[in-house]
Amino acid sequence: MDAAEQSLRQSLSEKSSSVESQGNAVRALKASRAGKPEIDAAIDLLNKLKLEKSAVEKQLQSTITSSGNGSLNREAFRQAVVNTLERRLFYIPSFKIYRGVAGLFDYGPPGCAVKSNVLSFWRQHFILEENMLEVDCPCVTPEVVLKASGHVDKFTDLMVKDEKTGTCYRADHLLKDYCTDKLEKDLTISAEKAAEFKDVLAVMEDYSPEELGAKLKEYGITAPDTKNPLSDPYPFNLMFQTSIGPSGLIPGYMRPETAQGIFVNFKDLYYYNGRKLPFAAAQIGQAFRNEISPRQGLLRVREFTLAEIEHFVDPENKSHPKFPDVSKLEFLMFPREEQMSGQSAKKLCIGEAVAKGTVNNETLGYFIGRVYLFLTRLGIDKERLRFRQHLANEMAHYAADCWDAEIESSYGWIECVGIADRSAYDLRAHSEKSGVALVAEEKYAEPKEVEKLVINPVKKELGLAFKGNQKNVVESLEAMNEKEAMEMKASLESKGEVEFYVCTLGKNVIIKKNMVSISKEKKKEHQRVFTPSVIEPSFGIGRIIYCLYEHCFSTRPSKAGDEQLNVFRFPPLVAPIKCTVFPLVQNQQFEEATKVISKELTSVGISHKIDITGTSIGKRYARTDELGVPFAITVDSDTSVTIRERDSKDQVRVSLEEAASLVSSVAEGKMTWQDVWARFPHHSSAAADE
Amino acid sequence: MDAAEQSLRQSLSEKSSSVESQGNAVRALKASRAGKPEIDAAIDLLNKLKLEKSAVEKQLQSTITSSGNGSLNREAFRQAVVNTLERRLFYIPSFKIYRGVAGLFDYGPPGCAVKSNVLSFWRQHFILEENMLEVDCPCVTPEVVLKASGHVDKFTDLMVKDEKTGTCYRADHLLKDYCTDKLEKDLTISAEKAAEFKDVLAVMEDYSPEELGAKLKEYGITAPDTKNPLSDPYPFNLMFQTSIGPSGLIPGYMRPETAQGIFVNFKDLYYYNGRKLPFAAAQIGQAFRNEISPRQGLLRVREFTLAEIEHFVDPENKSHPKFPDVSKLEFLMFPREEQMSGQSAKKLCIGEAVAKGTVNNETLGYFIGRVYLFLTRLGIDKERLRFRQHLANEMAHYAADCWDAEIESSYGWIECVGIADRSAYDLRAHSEKSGVALVAEEKYAEPKEVEKLVINPVKKELGLAFKGNQKNVVESLEAMNEKEAMEMKASLESKGEVEFYVCTLGKNVIIKKNMVSISKEKKKEHQRVFTPSVIEPSFGIGRIIYCLYEHCFSTRPSKAGDEQLNVFRFPPLVAPIKCTVFPLVQNQQFEEATKVISKELTSVGISHKIDITGTSIGKRYARTDELGVPFAITVDSDTSVTIRERDSKDQVRVSLEEAASLVSSVAEGKMTWQDVWARFPHHSSAAADE
Repeated sequence: MDAAEQSLRQSLSEKSSSVESQGNAVRALKASRAGKPEIDAAIDLLNKLKLEKSAVEKQLQSTITSSGNGSLNREAFRQAVVNTLERRLFYIPSFKIYRGVAGLFDYGPPGCAVKSNVLSFWRQHFILEENMLEVDCPCVTPEVVLKASGHVDKFTDLMVKDEKTGTCYRADHLLKDYCTDKLEKDLTISAEKAAEFKDVLAVMEDYSPEELGAKLKEYGITAPDTKNPLSDPYPFNLMFQTSIGPSGLIPGYMRPETAQGIFVNFKDLYYYNGRKLPFAAAQIGQAFRNEISPRQGLLRVREFTLAEIEHFVDPENKSHPKFPDVSKLEFLMFPREEQMSGQSAKKLCIGEAVAKGTVNNETLGYFIGRVYLFLTRLGIDKERLRFRQHLANEMAHYAADCWDAEIESSYGWIECVGIADRSAYDLRAHSEKSGVALVAEEKYAEPKEVEKLVINPVKKELGLAFKGNQKNVVESLEAMNEKEAMEMKASLESKGEVEFYVCTLGKNVIIKKNMVSISKEKKKEHQRVFTPSVIEPSFGIGRIIYCLYEHCFSTRPSKAGDEQLNVFRFPPLVAPIKCTVFPLVQNQQFEEATKVISKELTSVGISHKIDITGTSIGKRYARTDELGVPFAITVDSDTSVTIRERDSKDQVRVSLEEAASLVSSVAEGKMTWQDVWARFPHHSSAAADE
Repeated sequence: MDAAEQSLRQSLSEKSSSVESQGNAVRALKASRAGKPEIDAAIDLLNKLKLEKSAVEKQLQSTITSSGNGSLNREAFRQAVVNTLERRLFYIPSFKIYRGVAGLFDYGPPGCAVKSNVLSFWRQHFILEENMLEVDCPCVTPEVVLKASGHVDKFTDLMVKDEKTGTCYRADHLLKDYCTDKLEKDLTISAEKAAEFKDVLAVMEDYSPEELGAKLKEYGITAPDTKNPLSDPYPFNLMFQTSIGPSGLIPGYMRPETAQGIFVNFKDLYYYNGRKLPFAAAQIGQAFRNEISPRQGLLRVREFTLAEIEHFVDPENKSHPKFPDVSKLEFLMFPREEQMSGQSAKKLCIGEAVAKGTVNNETLGYFIGRVYLFLTRLGIDKERLRFRQHLANEMAHYAADCWDAEIESSYGWIECVGIADRSAYDLRAHSEKSGVALVAEEKYAEPKEVEKLVINPVKKELGLAFKGNQKNVVESLEAMNEKEAMEMKASLESKGEVEFYVCTLGKNVIIKKNMVSISKEKKKEHQRVFTPSVIEPSFGIGRIIYCLYEHCFSTRPSKAGDEQLNVFRFPPLVAPIKCTVFPLVQNQQFEEATKVISKELTSVGISHKIDITGTSIGKRYARTDELGVPFAITVDSDTSVTIRERDSKDQVRVSLEEAASLVSSVAEGKMTWQDVWARFPHHSSAAADE
């Protein structure tokens, strides 16, 4: 233990006892007939002490995790987290008894409960609070849909094969590994060479197959397992392919995202919403990516749960009525300019970021704010969460702006939520492919007078002049935009004829004044028809959960000091089990009371676990700390119980009748542990038990 | 309107006014200072009247739906339900703008909410109340797992192809259609022929491909669309096939059920459960069946949500500690004997059915009871729900007993939940294929003395006699079961040698007395090792939801009597939207109040919809009745609102402050509408509004 740690521990112990004595003072005030102001003041002081205590604890934790060699420490930390997760069945490598399949993982019982809690909160925070239209579409998707979306042609990674064994690798991974290795381990390389490797790492995402292949050759990169030569890189489509129906003639894929199911339903959803914009649709479901060689454990998998929102909005008005609700929020943002100029992320106020144009529009800003609230309420550390803007080369050509919520983990900064303004791209693509107009209308309060270009080809004259080519010329004339048409009109009026390029004929023709009339007419229009823009927040649920595990994981010494105990400090909202109930000793009275409490907890929907093993209370606490259970009820009398909070290890005495409803209130966030601590007598034997 | 309907309507109108006057009397009593007994008596009377009113309503509804020609009526009823479902976006044919894909459907917003409510209740009713271990495994499954389970070889339907066009049909469907058509429409067939067709329909499930082909030929059945000749029937595997990873060498399938994910995790789950039996694991997720030609609309689809439970139990003790909780339940059961002897389902008490051995064991009986409670609480009509036992020819050879929860719909009786005792089949199959023992142990309180067979091949003698074949002979000797070994021992003792078949050599060898010692020894055993039996309740969530739609759907005349209005009488538990809120007229005060109520409802998680369109309250009620919204809050004053219940159309007056919490209590089942009706003043303009 170094000096810093020692002094923090000392301070923590002082704060703890001061919290305890103040808590007792509050109780004494309550028991006496002291007036409300005195009690309130005492409670305020108590809460302040608690906050200080928790700040010291946090500082202590970060001192412990940050000491020592950074990257080695990260590896060790990750191993500790992953070991605990696997041992306690938060996840299980899928089909383990058959030696598993890379990139496929099961959620075991506690993992499944965490996932279910995260999704429930997502439904509450987004769908219910924003009145979104939830849909649930199949995973099996016919080819035409993914052809329209571009996935059939472009959802690929570049792959190389070991020319002798046929083993496949992601080409960019091999290049990245080579450059990183050189930079980190080869002390002989020149500064010039180092700069080159860094440059390659920065731009390799943009390499064509040919450029990537040339680099692999230049550096003499071979297959990592065998050192055999590699094939040239070629695109491998990442969708799982299948065939729909018995004929084998209808190709299909397992969807790579849930968004397309929403886009193809736009028309029905728009009608369902009373033909009003904006509105959002949402979908939670499985998505599939047949990764070439999955790495990064739980972060890069072949099947995962996505939660996606498609918010449809008038492209001419991307304001959001609820933007003021989030505009004061401040958090780490990493705009394009800061990335390009080598700065780091900085705290910005989202309201200002939108006002200054750093974030493209209010709706995008609103969702960035809502995502921040969602993630931090789940338990993501706000100091290790940033919103990074896509660089120009990362963004699709049609996108107006795009920000990723990135969470820092032992693997570095991980993209967990993408929030993109995709403009009208997706709806247009499906409109074109399907022939069904996916548009919205804005009815004008009063008809608007507009000037409209009118082009009337005179078919008789054109027929005489161009015979069989007449149709091509007519079509080309009608396709002129306003500028072209007005230029032609001017030329015809001044010169009587004009040269005109007909692209479908591939040549110029001569158009005379009598062959076409061009004019501008005033028309009354009653509505505007347009393709809505879509703003898409897309959540990788599995990645968020994994980062949450890392952010909530910590260790603390056992009472005897002889071992480090693991704790998942999940907020009650996401904790897989909200409460354990155990009889202090095995006797019938305590077991009956345990049953009564269990029944009450079940009836109010609070997940809990009964531990009737005879091991010491300390051991039982340690076991449940490792599952992240926030509260424990120990039945140690006929009439009352002890309730212990996981993080503070504080314990209070509560009557048997109140126990279940109290735990349910605090587990559901209706009251805080501070409230409980202030209101109930403290249990003093806490130290002895652990 | 026939006489019966008229008289029921008359009676209904009388009951309604009597309910109203009694309700007013109760309020008057409360307002006066009448004692508790008087008020209680009045409330009792009121509730009695309400029950009578609802009984008459039910009778009226069934008179309306059952009148006229049965099957035609069923068709018309189904059309009415399906039209409403599709118009209100409960479901959408998937990829509709691309003309859809047979057997794939989306859940639209209200359908999605119903599904989410059904699954939440399933989690509460089964996982939480029974402390089950929930897991969540991928859909993509490697071949080896489904080879072990038997799906790769046996999960098939018999298919025929149009020999000219290649169009595929399910062979049994064509035969079934032919026989049914003949029986229903051909008046010329003899009684003998009719009996033959009936017989074919009864046994066709057991036909081999050859038998089915022969029948198709015999009846001259051709392709329905073209009348072209058909191919012979051949098995078509119903799993969607795909390939895992980039090499194309690892075949995989989209899982046809979720159960296998649980079986392969048995060992980990057993340890997680502290190596104790019984325990249950559960999984909710997508499953896939590539149907040859999906029919029956929403009932037979290619992708669907399953919720499956695998309850692992000691085969020697299938009692269930909570069986007394359900043993008194009575419901329609249809045991094997009744089906064979042409009787119909009858009401049985599940406790007696288990006691008499009609249901194989307590655990199976317990789940049948729990499934009954689950379905009826969702809103399935208990008179149209039966538990049908599988006949011998329907059941897998290894199954101990199997019951289907069947729900009557316009398509007939539909299997919605299967509850099977699958014995040790699944765990054994995966043990054998994977080489990992999936077993449980029972530790004895005291060591037990058992007689064990001991076979000791004498390797030296066997080596001399059989040289290179020694190993095969040794293995065969060791593999003898008790009977074989004791027979060999007797023969060796009497004759000195014996002929012995070595299957791995494919021939007999001579075993002499000095080559093997066989004995029985007494051993002390500390535990028993066995493969658990599994009892599997498996829920087709989509089918349950569809049947629920039919059971909850009804029509009632509009106030003017000029049209029939659709109502989904969903219990609040499953209703997609719990409440609508509308300002009576468009003014700022009412809209402010509407916002306040909406905010409160959101914060307690009650889904609701605001309707600020200016249409009449009656029209707005009709619109929400069609979505099955149970409660409507009309903001018609600054200080109080009217709350209307969908089925009774009763309305009460409640203060603005109380509105949200009252609706939330009754929507969450914490109080009943009867309680509300008794406690709050009635709104008399009800009739005028609708």
